[in-house]
Amino acid sequence: MAAELQFTYQNALSTNAGTDGISPKDLNDKAALAAVDAFRQRVDSGEIGFPMLPEDRRTAAAIAEFADELRGQVDDLLLVGIGGSALGAYALDVAIRGPHPAQTSSNGKPPRPRLIVLDNVDPGVVASALAGCNPRRTAVCVIAKSGSTAETLATFMIVREWMGNAAKGKPRVVAVTDAKKGDLLGIAKEERWPLFFVPANVGGRFSVFSPVGLVPAALLGIDIRKLLKGARLANQRSWSRDLEQNFALRSAQLHHALDTMRNKKTEVVFAYSSYLWGAAFWYRQLWAESIGKRVNRAGAVVETGQTPVAALGVTDQHSQLQLYMEGPRDKMITFWDVRKPRVELKIPKIYTRYDSCGYLGGKKLSDLFRAERIATEAALTANGRPNCRWSLSHVDEVTLGEFFQVLEFQTAFAGELYGIDAFDQPGVELGKKLTYGLMGRKGFEEHARELKGLK
Amino acid sequence: MAAELQFTYQNALSTNAGTDGISPKDLNDKAALAAVDAFRQRVDSGEIGFPMLPEDRRTAAAIAEFADELRGQVDDLLLVGIGGSALGAYALDVAIRGPHPAQTSSNGKPPRPRLIVLDNVDPGVVASALAGCNPRRTAVCVIAKSGSTAETLATFMIVREWMGNAAKGKPRVVAVTDAKKGDLLGIAKEERWPLFFVPANVGGRFSVFSPVGLVPAALLGIDIRKLLKGARLANQRSWSRDLEQNFALRSAQLHHALDTMRNKKTEVVFAYSSYLWGAAFWYRQLWAESIGKRVNRAGAVVETGQTPVAALGVTDQHSQLQLYMEGPRDKMITFWDVRKPRVELKIPKIYTRYDSCGYLGGKKLSDLFRAERIATEAALTANGRPNCRWSLSHVDEVTLGEFFQVLEFQTAFAGELYGIDAFDQPGVELGKKLTYGLMGRKGFEEHARELKGLK
Repeated sequence: MAAELQFTYQNALSTNAGTDGISPKDLNDKAALAAVDAFRQRVDSGEIGFPMLPEDRRTAAAIAEFADELRGQVDDLLLVGIGGSALGAYALDVAIRGPHPAQTSSNGKPPRPRLIVLDNVDPGVVASALAGCNPRRTAVCVIAKSGSTAETLATFMIVREWMGNAAKGKPRVVAVTDAKKGDLLGIAKEERWPLFFVPANVGGRFSVFSPVGLVPAALLGIDIRKLLKGARLANQRSWSRDLEQNFALRSAQLHHALDTMRNKKTEVVFAYSSYLWGAAFWYRQLWAESIGKRVNRAGAVVETGQTPVAALGVTDQHSQLQLYMEGPRDKMITFWDVRKPRVELKIPKIYTRYDSCGYLGGKKLSDLFRAERIATEAALTANGRPNCRWSLSHVDEVTLGEFFQVLEFQTAFAGELYGIDAFDQPGVELGKKLTYGLMGRKGFEEHARELKGLK
Repeated sequence: MAAELQFTYQNALSTNAGTDGISPKDLNDKAALAAVDAFRQRVDSGEIGFPMLPEDRRTAAAIAEFADELRGQVDDLLLVGIGGSALGAYALDVAIRGPHPAQTSSNGKPPRPRLIVLDNVDPGVVASALAGCNPRRTAVCVIAKSGSTAETLATFMIVREWMGNAAKGKPRVVAVTDAKKGDLLGIAKEERWPLFFVPANVGGRFSVFSPVGLVPAALLGIDIRKLLKGARLANQRSWSRDLEQNFALRSAQLHHALDTMRNKKTEVVFAYSSYLWGAAFWYRQLWAESIGKRVNRAGAVVETGQTPVAALGVTDQHSQLQLYMEGPRDKMITFWDVRKPRVELKIPKIYTRYDSCGYLGGKKLSDLFRAERIATEAALTANGRPNCRWSLSHVDEVTLGEFFQVLEFQTAFAGELYGIDAFDQPGVELGKKLTYGLMGRKGFEEHARELKGLK
């Protein structure tokens, strides 16, 4: 039987992709193994926590128990959070329950509870979402590691007022934040709402297997124990020193070599599954925010980081492929493939006398889907556009758990190869301070003055 | 009163953005006016048709009449099409009726008919969508200019079978295709379904104001006459020789100069409105497929084309901004701003004793939204990241009509400045042929052999 998760990269080698590809020795296995050792130290010292998350079965059990009780009592789940506090749950919802708006259960009805992610402060969207929900049949999950994120608190204050008495002391609101500090912690305690905690050594974009991802996932009926089981498989694989088995490390090497040696400044994630479209946006944050850095750990200016681009197969063959085939040679393309579709559909044998229909009738729709992915990979390779492929046997909680955790390891290893810190985000601080200034927060008057006159 | 549509680019000039910005003389106004003349010729000769679409009031009236009758009889609209045959309608739906899944009408219920875009051949999604619809209460709009698009026909054959007798000779199925050729034309005639035609000189990505965009839009209750009114405003503006008024031309110049003189190979469209998130994906096709070309019109290999990236403000400040601020200097950022929100929400004065809440209470949510956009622009500019801004007074049919048409003119003018043909897509042919080969279509056996053994 084929392994659940596979990673292949022969189309990124010069033997297949020509001069824009790399040779196996460009991968520098010695540096790769040193990266594993360096990252292992940061984990063993307790500095970085994400690899330990799947081991915490106790928290998962507590979350599952809490969610099982609440789930049946609500029609809607409002997730109030932004960035790493929203993208993991959204990605899991799309993967397990299907993309919006066509999301249906086996009975043809939308699955309950419906997930609405309030991760933007666009007032029309917040108002529209609240208009469609009943406060007595809605669970609210508010997530902010720091406990002070402006967008999350502003939205939550509006949601809290909308809930009125329905939220008083009821377990219908659940907060996820730091265990020791922050205003959200204080508020949740004051309101006597259930609380789950993000470990201090787990950053937002690496938190999908902490309560940040697990609480909303469990409320949606996703099997979080299986997610963690998959993530533990990824841990095993990712600490391996056998480079052909350690997909996370191979992928990190490949990205680093294609970027630094072949100037592939863009990574297109071409997801050939509508179920992985949310995951592409989750990955976009993981990769961009982790590797996009001005200085390396020695303090030298490096301005690193591939720009991740989310593309959907086959859809974006009719939108972006022209550019990927013929435009600048600044891209690597990473295919995300799913070998077994969730359901099968047969194309009926109708309109047989029309040339454009005849050859399709009687085939499976997934045959067309697969043929297009194979054809696109082959065409890109023939045009000297290096590409690689993650392939999942199917999409369920175990395979997703493994895939997400492997991608987190890939990111951590890549941080070591680039010599940058993959776990901070210093570049967003200035914007935050300027926002505080404009909003009249005390202590930021200086920043307000800088912006005087702008609109 | 401020004009409805504004374009500003001082943050892309070296005076604001430093050495990564350009100087006004880099814009080369003489070349720009020559581009207008050259493009005008292609329109006047009948080669390129999109500028004429808004003048066709007769087709719009026929579409409106057809849609007004059908609309009340259905709960769902299935749009079967891909690329330029889907993205325009999707963008208009999100802009006018709001993003999924929070889309609600004034009564808190989802608006009818619901739009489900079947633009991927992922069998699970097609099956799930059909499971949630009633064939007797569903309109189907099938769109393919060539009439032979494999994905569209395969999906439509499945949808046709699902509809059964509900589709027989009923105006519940409507087809949009070429007036003279193609299998979809034959099928629609045979089935006696209503037909609307795409002019032969209008390509998919420039077809939103042809029946391709107008038929589904009208079925959703969008005012297509107002869309065309806005597009006519854009026409006026875009043929102007006053470069400060001709936003499409200025924007084309700016993109071209930042790409060719400052190596900005990526354009981030940072849409500060959830209502414009669909439009960002529509634009992504327009820009990528038009400018991403291997050869120029003299036949020389040029490999041009910025990679368009869709980002959502403020959400992606917590996902992508770190990279834009600190990563490689290979990007220009184009803000899409909306000055007046659709509705207003006030942040309540609660939790006042918490520092992270106190300064927010009593403010409007749109104040926070606007402050973050201003702060992000200022921070990027301070970091030497050139940016520009489209600003819409509000989002309605007229402003969207103007904005979309201006972006099409921008693309056409940019094609002239790059010296490439913005209206073809030769790069996707190989993949299509390989797909036909794999699917066993007659005449493509050679292509099948090439791919033997791949999986």
